[in-house]
Amino acid sequence: MAILNTHDAVWSALEELRAKRPLVHNITNYVAMTVSANVLLALGASPAMVHAAEEVEDFVAISDALCINIGTLSPPWVEAMGKAAARANALGKPWVFDPVGCGATPYRTRVSDELAVLRPAVIRGNAGEVQSMAGAGAGATKGVDSVAGADAATAAAAEAVSRRTGAVVAATGAIDHVVEGTAHQAIESGDALMPLSTALGCTLSAVVAAFTAVRPPRQAAIAALAVYGAAGAVAARNCRGPGHLPAELCDALYLMDRDTLQREVRFTA
Amino acid sequence: MAILNTHDAVWSALEELRAKRPLVHNITNYVAMTVSANVLLALGASPAMVHAAEEVEDFVAISDALCINIGTLSPPWVEAMGKAAARANALGKPWVFDPVGCGATPYRTRVSDELAVLRPAVIRGNAGEVQSMAGAGAGATKGVDSVAGADAATAAAAEAVSRRTGAVVAATGAIDHVVEGTAHQAIESGDALMPLSTALGCTLSAVVAAFTAVRPPRQAAIAALAVYGAAGAVAARNCRGPGHLPAELCDALYLMDRDTLQREVRFTA
Amino acid sequence: MAILNTHDAVWSALEELRAKRPLVHNITNYVAMTVSANVLLALGASPAMVHAAEEVEDFVAISDALCINIGTLSPPWVEAMGKAAARANALGKPWVFDPVGCGATPYRTRVSDELAVLRPAVIRGNAGEVQSMAGAGAGATKGVDSVAGADAATAAAAEAVSRRTGAVVAATGAIDHVVEGTAHQAIESGDALMPLSTALGCTLSAVVAAFTAVRPPRQAAIAALAVYGAAGAVAARNCRGPGHLPAELCDALYLMDRDTLQREVRFTA
Repeated sequence: MAILNTHDAVWSALEELRAKRPLVHNITNYVAMTVSANVLLALGASPAMVHAAEEVEDFVAISDALCINIGTLSPPWVEAMGKAAARANALGKPWVFDPVGCGATPYRTRVSDELAVLRPAVIRGNAGEVQSMAGAGAGATKGVDSVAGADAATAAAAEAVSRRTGAVVAATGAIDHVVEGTAHQAIESGDALMPLSTALGCTLSAVVAAFTAVRPPRQAAIAALAVYGAAGAVAARNCRGPGHLPAELCDALYLMDRDTLQREVRFTA
Repeated sequence: MAILNTHDAVWSALEELRAKRPLVHNITNYVAMTVSANVLLALGASPAMVHAAEEVEDFVAISDALCINIGTLSPPWVEAMGKAAARANALGKPWVFDPVGCGATPYRTRVSDELAVLRPAVIRGNAGEVQSMAGAGAGATKGVDSVAGADAATAAAAEAVSRRTGAVVAATGAIDHVVEGTAHQAIESGDALMPLSTALGCTLSAVVAAFTAVRPPRQAAIAALAVYGAAGAVAARNCRGPGHLPAELCDALYLMDRDTLQREVRFTA
Repeated sequence: MAILNTHDAVWSALEELRAKRPLVHNITNYVAMTVSANVLLALGASPAMVHAAEEVEDFVAISDALCINIGTLSPPWVEAMGKAAARANALGKPWVFDPVGCGATPYRTRVSDELAVLRPAVIRGNAGEVQSMAGAGAGATKGVDSVAGADAATAAAAEAVSRRTGAVVAATGAIDHVVEGTAHQAIESGDALMPLSTALGCTLSAVVAAFTAVRPPRQAAIAALAVYGAAGAVAARNCRGPGHLPAELCDALYLMDRDTLQREVRFTA
């Protein structure tokens, strides 16, 4: 792993993930569950959706990584999320946080703030969510779809969130940004059709979690965004609209090879 | 908008919806969530699934319309539904009610009765559900699939429900009926394959909600049923069975144009 | 029904199911709900997902069969599962139990044990789950994907579980085993792609439930596994990866005919 952020490093991470077949524990929203499970399977991971407070700590113990997503949060689920994150930390297992809709309601923002300080390895959100977490104001979030502005503002917000939480922050959009403290990597891939298929952002967070089972957080985030974006670009070319995009995305992940990754992803400063 | 109920009026409503991209708040059942979100995105709306009592009122405040569907109801969800409907009324925002399985169990019928009087703009159900709401007896509902009889009985039941609740009632089936008091519009479109793909009725209710963000309730219901039926007809012709129907439906909505709408929908008295 | 376990017997069961269109009540996990509903519709059954303790007993009363699946269990759901199973027994209606992830956590194993003794007609699980239920130790289960060993061990575990619970046990994998006491039927069909699409095992349990509405438990399990496996084999041949498998599975079930069943399924001792 001498050279970071290159196609070779991403490809080797994917090969290792496929060989290891990590068990990824998801406490995620109802909308994202099925597509997240299918994408994790196509990627080469083993997904599980387990949310009861009565068992999340035990399940963390047998998992390789954890993904927590507050898309359809409610108090019993939030309790379980806190328990699972704490146990992951106690066991030294990486967990990924997806603060869906942070900024949309006070409840959601408060829960995001509470979970963000429980030392996630990676926080993955869209520009509006990351800006909301950075304190840029609730106006940046329109439901769960980002309406926030320029890339520079997003990268700055990601840096602020990373410094406050200690997490790697992956702010995704037309251009993706992976930020750890002041270190910054931009990634260009994917397709404009992707935001028209629900929960593909949430599912990306699960993919990041899968990669944290085989790489440190920053490398895991970069590998996940690269592989997912490449698959999304291939998938979109097989579609006339967004309807078949999740199925095509699974096939593209299942069939992903070194050449496709090279062709479909650009790493920029 | 001088001429109601014509293809031109429906087309202009769709164009306005696509331009506005309304945020549609859904409190819906687990089965319908993903397909509803995908259909709303393909239509041109922005979906959100938010159900916690702790935040539904705040989310109504930032939404353009609300859809409440009791398909997989339970007491915490019903509490949130009541709160959300009340807040929508207080803010003058339209909400749509889908009384899934009304008549199938006493609990479901009681909850339907309680929500129906909270002034929904539109109630959308199948023939059995609408007849149950009209008091035609629980025998008309077999689970969530309608087994009820003739169109005349359905239209009469819709009229009774509309008079009692003040809502526009959309009773859908082989022929759809949109009823407001004694005003009645029948719409023919769609395909017999559609009931073989789950939650497409529930999803239609979400589409009605999206149109209430740009048109008054009766016009919204008519536009939604026309656009959805046209897309369903196109989608079914691309299928050998029901498996790919949801994906094809999304593509057909995404690609919907004026000529397709004209060709695939008939308005009758 | 003089000849059991033959293609003719399976085909006649499917014809009867299609004619009867049984209402199948599911209390299942969030991940499996949509695909289970779609598969049941394509098969010819009428699905309903109903889980509130306030109505499950009433819903069992109007259903033809019940499927209980603990994939995303939590205490309110487990309470409803117990009520529904008890009412099904009281009314003489068959119910099917899917002990998803039994062995993965103590909570899950305890709930499985509690439900397994409520006289399910059929228990359907993968090798790891069935071995865990037989007391082969929690090590056999890795999340919800089986990593357990040879077919002989699986068949022996299925026999032990059948003797203890009185249920027919269907242990599915590359080769499926249907066991009732010491009677044993092996079935070969399906495709290696199927475990890469989420919840297809859970969905098979719902298909077993549908067949219990038209056949006694052992015949129902055999018919379900044969029809589902045949459809899976056909579906997989239309796929380059797992993405479109659920949709293709639905189409294959919808189009299933006598010749396909004959060609795609082998019954072995």
